[in-house]
Amino acid sequence: MSDTQRDVRSIPAAFDVVTEPWQPHRLATVNDADVKVVRLLGEFVWHTHPDTDELFLVRSGTLVIQLRDGDVTLGPGDVYVIPAGVEHCPIAREEVEAVLIERVGTLNTGDAGGDRTFEAREL
Amino acid sequence: MSDTQRDVRSIPAAFDVVTEPWQPHRLATVNDADVKVVRLLGEFVWHTHPDTDELFLVRSGTLVIQLRDGDVTLGPGDVYVIPAGVEHCPIAREEVEAVLIERVGTLNTGDAGGDRTFEAREL
Repeated sequence: MSDTQRDVRSIPAAFDVVTEPWQPHRLATVNDADVKVVRLLGEFVWHTHPDTDELFLVRSGTLVIQLRDGDVTLGPGDVYVIPAGVEHCPIAREEVEAVLIERVGTLNTGDAGGDRTFEAREL
Repeated sequence: MSDTQRDVRSIPAAFDVVTEPWQPHRLATVNDADVKVVRLLGEFVWHTHPDTDELFLVRSGTLVIQLRDGDVTLGPGDVYVIPAGVEHCPIAREEVEAVLIERVGTLNTGDAGGDRTFEAREL
């Protein structure tokens, strides 16, 4: 296998490693954006990312993102961008596999902090 | 349907609209990055994006990205990032559906220009 081929990352293989919910792992970085994989199950916490938009791409399951002005529902293959500074709280009634895109260094709980905070891990 | 729900974009629905190869269409923007969908078929042109990394996420098919120091082969669910300034030339022997992430305003042919240049369209 060539050195470059070793740098290919597989999203399905990433989900074999990332087995616990709410623990984002970094798959790749493109310019100043991290691409992460994460499982979601249950309700998260209301929070805001003041300095970054956050893109959710759902790979499996149904994700509801609560916003202060209504809910957004995402199924497989759906993409939604939460603008920087917009308060939100994801709920996954059954397990969801999702890909996130957000600025390098973004914490999952944003400005809320607390015990759901998880420093993104490397794959 | 709520206003926010209308902002959800579907990758499968995007590929129903984007039927021709080598015509990237913008699905979403997250900070300064555009997320585009594109079909690839045949060989493209050697080119470089001096100012942006370029992420390929393959949705279906097998994509070979030729680099000056070897080829990279991507299947469904695979992700590869071409660093800014690295010359590359994609080949799809059968049709490939891919998602691209790159800086807003990036042209498909980068510094090469020519008749394969396609200004990314909105979905």
